[in-house]
This record gives sequence, structure tokens and C-alpha cells, in this order.
Amino acid sequence: MAKSNNQIRIAIDAMGGDNSPFSVVAGTVMGYRILRSEVKLFLVGDTQWIKKELVGLKADNLPIEIVDAQEVIEMGEEPAESVRRKKRSSINVGMTLQKEGKVDAFISAGNTGAVMASSLLILGRLEGVDRPAIAAYFPTEEGIALVLDVGANSDCKAQHLFQFGVMGAIYSKYILKVKNPKVGLLSIGEEQTKGNELTIASHKLLDSSDLNFRGNIEGFDILKGTVDVVVCDGFVGNIILKFAESTEGFMTSLLKKKIRGNLFATFGAFLMTPAFKCFKQSLDYAEYGGAPLLGINGVCIICHGNSSPKAIKNAILVSTDMVRKKVNKIIQEKLQEDIAISKPLSKKVRKIWS
Amino acid sequence: MAKSNNQIRIAIDAMGGDNSPFSVVAGTVMGYRILRSEVKLFLVGDTQWIKKELVGLKADNLPIEIVDAQEVIEMGEEPAESVRRKKRSSINVGMTLQKEGKVDAFISAGNTGAVMASSLLILGRLEGVDRPAIAAYFPTEEGIALVLDVGANSDCKAQHLFQFGVMGAIYSKYILKVKNPKVGLLSIGEEQTKGNELTIASHKLLDSSDLNFRGNIEGFDILKGTVDVVVCDGFVGNIILKFAESTEGFMTSLLKKKIRGNLFATFGAFLMTPAFKCFKQSLDYAEYGGAPLLGINGVCIICHGNSSPKAIKNAILVSTDMVRKKVNKIIQEKLQEDIAISKPLSKKVRKIWS
Repeated sequence: MAKSNNQIRIAIDAMGGDNSPFSVVAGTVMGYRILRSEVKLFLVGDTQWIKKELVGLKADNLPIEIVDAQEVIEMGEEPAESVRRKKRSSINVGMTLQKEGKVDAFISAGNTGAVMASSLLILGRLEGVDRPAIAAYFPTEEGIALVLDVGANSDCKAQHLFQFGVMGAIYSKYILKVKNPKVGLLSIGEEQTKGNELTIASHKLLDSSDLNFRGNIEGFDILKGTVDVVVCDGFVGNIILKFAESTEGFMTSLLKKKIRGNLFATFGAFLMTPAFKCFKQSLDYAEYGGAPLLGINGVCIICHGNSSPKAIKNAILVSTDMVRKKVNKIIQEKLQEDIAISKPLSKKVRKIWS
Repeated sequence: MAKSNNQIRIAIDAMGGDNSPFSVVAGTVMGYRILRSEVKLFLVGDTQWIKKELVGLKADNLPIEIVDAQEVIEMGEEPAESVRRKKRSSINVGMTLQKEGKVDAFISAGNTGAVMASSLLILGRLEGVDRPAIAAYFPTEEGIALVLDVGANSDCKAQHLFQFGVMGAIYSKYILKVKNPKVGLLSIGEEQTKGNELTIASHKLLDSSDLNFRGNIEGFDILKGTVDVVVCDGFVGNIILKFAESTEGFMTSLLKKKIRGNLFATFGAFLMTPAFKCFKQSLDYAEYGGAPLLGINGVCIICHGNSSPKAIKNAILVSTDMVRKKVNKIIQEKLQEDIAISKPLSKKVRKIWS
């Protein structure tokens, strides 16, 4: 696993996800064909299975390495316990490669909780970060918004939400290339006195920081694209994410019911097929690869369980970018600067946002 | 304001909402024309304005009474403070009519917070209810689901969520005519150990009650129609409600963008117009009137700020039903039975659900 010059080394969990190892192996091959010598890719999992997939894809001659891992943490397994028990699971093996400095990033479409637990256990947190967060992309009228946390932390304190804001803004600026990203606190009223105890306390911290903080936003602001970074605890974020993911299917099935039996409408829908496809694509989370796990001492992208090869390929592109841009170093420096969270935060002189 | 036989008396806030008094007066007239002598309706607000609207609608000869109230609590005003200051506001006057036994129900499309504050101040809570809750209707693949609380309580305790479950189930059974309504706790994982501190504690209470409790549900379960009653705190509920309300507009605008410039798709969309209209109707909150405020010592329906006449009309139908079915009496009896919340709740012998 020698590192040649400036190559980014990425391990991909071949066993995670509903369509593994096919989707993951196919996505890895797609990623390799785009990035070529820029990256060194490692598929982690059952060697025989992976080899078979590579042969099937006529990609067994590519310089993609296989790292054997015989255990699999299934989607329904209890995360913390299975991570501790299945030492040779693809998730643990991939995470350990990163811990040992053999790869720079790890991608998994497996059990989200297990990826979280394994990353905390093996890689640990960045200095200055109390709680790593999962950041998800939401399509908006203006482009995309990053929402965090979407499930890593059910019960949060104000300083956690503040750190989510900082991490999200840095990711938005360096990876999504948003200049001076607007940060909003998800709440239930515009005024800073509106919300629950957590958001009222968090508002103060965010407001006294040097973030481009736009105050409280409401549920309808997410899709409107009012801000680039939406800060919330992982309980609220996870519910909103899962609700959002379900809306497209719901609306499609409702529309189909209304069309049924109406000849004109059916023909109309046929004529609209390309527009509908294009519409679905805009809502397709695969476009964005996966959700970065921010705040751990490493680079880790969590992909959706039903990730397509395209999603895996995009996750490879994003993680390459995260390593190149040294996103973790920037987060750590910024949060160590802001670490005295109990003191009122002064508007910082050194602006990193614009 | 004499009560003739079995007539239900309803006061309607003519000043609340974006299109007041037109929408409210028109909706009240629609409601009267359906229910006739079953109801006695009172429009509360500026007498001159209301009269003018009634004349415009050629409805000034109908037996709809006007109760003068010269003050208006605007949408942006601080609720508690404005309720205390504006004694003669339409909201306070309408609520007082109910307190004095002159009407049986009150409907407002005005400032939600002010309606809440005024109802608590003037009517108070039902015995056994710690926190009244606003219940909203969500369209689902199976019909509709009732979600509560959607904004009355930002920070809740387990017994509050338990009471929301009971109130929602009673409303679902008696007003929405659902037999043995399924109750779900909105959380971030199926297992009872998943969620935040609040939901884990609430799960225990709900599970040991005689409700048809189906355990935790996730964000995607709401639209799927997994349960009839979705229990959550008002912070989460309000964010989900506002997010949900924004999805249809977002999807429509996105679809329009994809159609633009494509002749076939444009023609297809034209052919689909009736289906689209029918689709929008299914998502239209006006179909359900408004959100009942459950747990106060009275009947109160909060309508959306931009309520159409149809929404007001439907709110009149629903509140008539709530009074006739004695929903409050059932809630109070049920919760007084369950009041010893600190003791483990036994499976009750007397089933009221099926």
C-alpha cells in the first residue's frame, strides 16, 4: 500500500448497502475511471465476491486493491455492540486502515450507526469537537443546503449545535464552494426568543460567533434555500431527512392515482416522461454521493443503504476533495480558536468565510 | 344569544387571517347554508366591516349575529403580551363568549400563539391535561394522520406526550371516525431504546397504556400512513408541519423548471391539468378545516392564516361535531382515569378505543 506522490488513498466498504457488493464495486470502478492515477482505491470485504464482481465488470485488470474482511455488520444490527464484536467486519477493517495511515478516507453504505460507532472507537474525534455530526444534502430552490446533524446525536447541548454550525460552514465553503455560507438555526419562529431551550441557548453562541449567521429559520426555509447550512440536533434532523426522502414517492403515487383512468392525463404524463425523469434526478441524493461524517479524526462518507454506483462514484470524488482541501485541519484550527465556549465569543478578526 | 333547543353556537373570529374579513365571512355564510338551524353563528370583529361583507355576499338577511370587537391582534405580534393588552381583540372577545357559556366553540385564523395564549388565560385547561396541544392533519397514502403537538409546546415531558397520545386517539376515534386508532411515537429508530431522552421515557408510558400503541415510527412513516395518530413535541411537530407545507410548492416549481422550453412536456402538462388540480386538492389543508386545540376547557379550532372560505366552512362543521360528540368530556374522563402517571399504568379493562 505504498503511497505514490500525491495520490489520495480511499477505502470503500464493499459489503455495505442493499446492493452490495455489486453497486459498490461498480461505483468504485466508475470512480477510478474518472480519477485514474489521482487515487489509489481499496475495496474492503469478501475477496472472492469482490473479485467476481470485478471480473463481471471487466475491471479485474485495474489497479484497485482488495483488502479482505470476512465479517459483515448487517443493516439491522445494534451498532455499538456489533462494532465491538465483529472485529473483522468491513467497517472496522476500513476504519483501521485509516487509523494506521494506510488510507486517507473511508466510504460505507452500510449500517450508519455502526459506521458512526466504529469511527468514534477507532479514529476518535478532532480536537475541539465534542460531537461528530452527519451532514446531509437537501435540494433547494437555490441549489442545495447542508443540514446537520441528521442522526448522530439525539440529545444535544448548545455548544454541540454551535460546532455543527462551524463544521457545516467550513464544509459548505471548501467542498460546496459557497462563498461566506449563510448559517441558519432550525427553530419554530424567527425571533431569537422563539424555539426550545436548546435553540434559544444555541442562538446566542451562533450569534456571537464570526459565522454568517442568519438567525432562526423555520421548516419551510429549508427547501426555499434561505440558508446554505441548517443547524439542528440529530433527532430533528433525522426526522426531517426521512420525511423529506418520503415526499417524492408519496407525491408520485398520489399523482398516479389521480391520472389513472383518465386517457388525456395518461397521454400527458407520457409526454412529460423526460421532464419527470429530470425532476426525479434533482431530488436524487445519489447526485451528492453521501453524507460526510464531520468532526471525526479522519474522512468518512456515509452513503445511503440503497446507493447506486453513481452515488458511490460521487462519494469517491467528494472524499478526494475533502482530503485535498484539508477540511479536517481547518475545522480543528477553527474550533480550537473558539474552544472557550463558556466565555462570550467575540467577533473574530480572522475571517475564514469569504 | 338565547339557545334554541339543540343548536350548537359557534363564534368565528372575523378579523383573523390574511384575507379577513372576506374569507371568514364567506366561509361562515357557506357553513350556515349547510347547517342552517343546527347552528347559531356569531362573527366577532369590526361590525361595519362584517356588515359590508355580508351585504356584498347578499347574506345580510341570514340569522348570523355580529359581536363587535374593535381591536385586532396582528399576525406578527407577541402573543402573550398582545392578549393581555388588547382586551377587546376579536380573539379575546370570542374566547370570553365561550367562557361565559354564550357559545360552544370558537374558530380563528388569526395569530396562532395569541389564540393559544388567550384560550389558556380565559378558558384554562381540562382537568387531567397538563399541556394543551395543536393537532394538525397530514395527508397520507392511507387517508389522513393526525400529528400532535405541532407548536403549542416547545419543551415537553413524557407525561405531556402521553396525554397528546390520548387526546389524539380520542379525536381520531370520535371526529375522524377511525376505529381503534393506531398511535405512533415519532422518533429515529423502531426499537424502543432509539430516540432522545424524551421519546425513550414517553415510549414507556404509551406502551403501558390501553392505547393501540404501535411503538416508535420514523419520519417516512407519516406520509406512509403507518399510524393514525403521530405523537411528538411541538418543536419537532411544527418544523415537520412547515416543511411538509413547503414541499408541494417546491416540487411544483421544480417540475415547472424542467418542463420549460420543452414543447411536448408543456402539452403533456396541459393535458394533465385536471389531474394536477385533483392532486393539489388532496394536499390542501383547507379540506380539513383547521387544527383543533386539544386539552383546553372549550372547543377551539385554529385555521391557517391564508384560509379559504372552504377552510372556514369545514372548521365550522368540525367544531359542531366536536361539541355534539362531547370530545372534551371524553378526554377529561380518560385522563383523570390515567392521572396517576407516576405509577406504572396497567392495561385498562374499560376499552374506549374500538
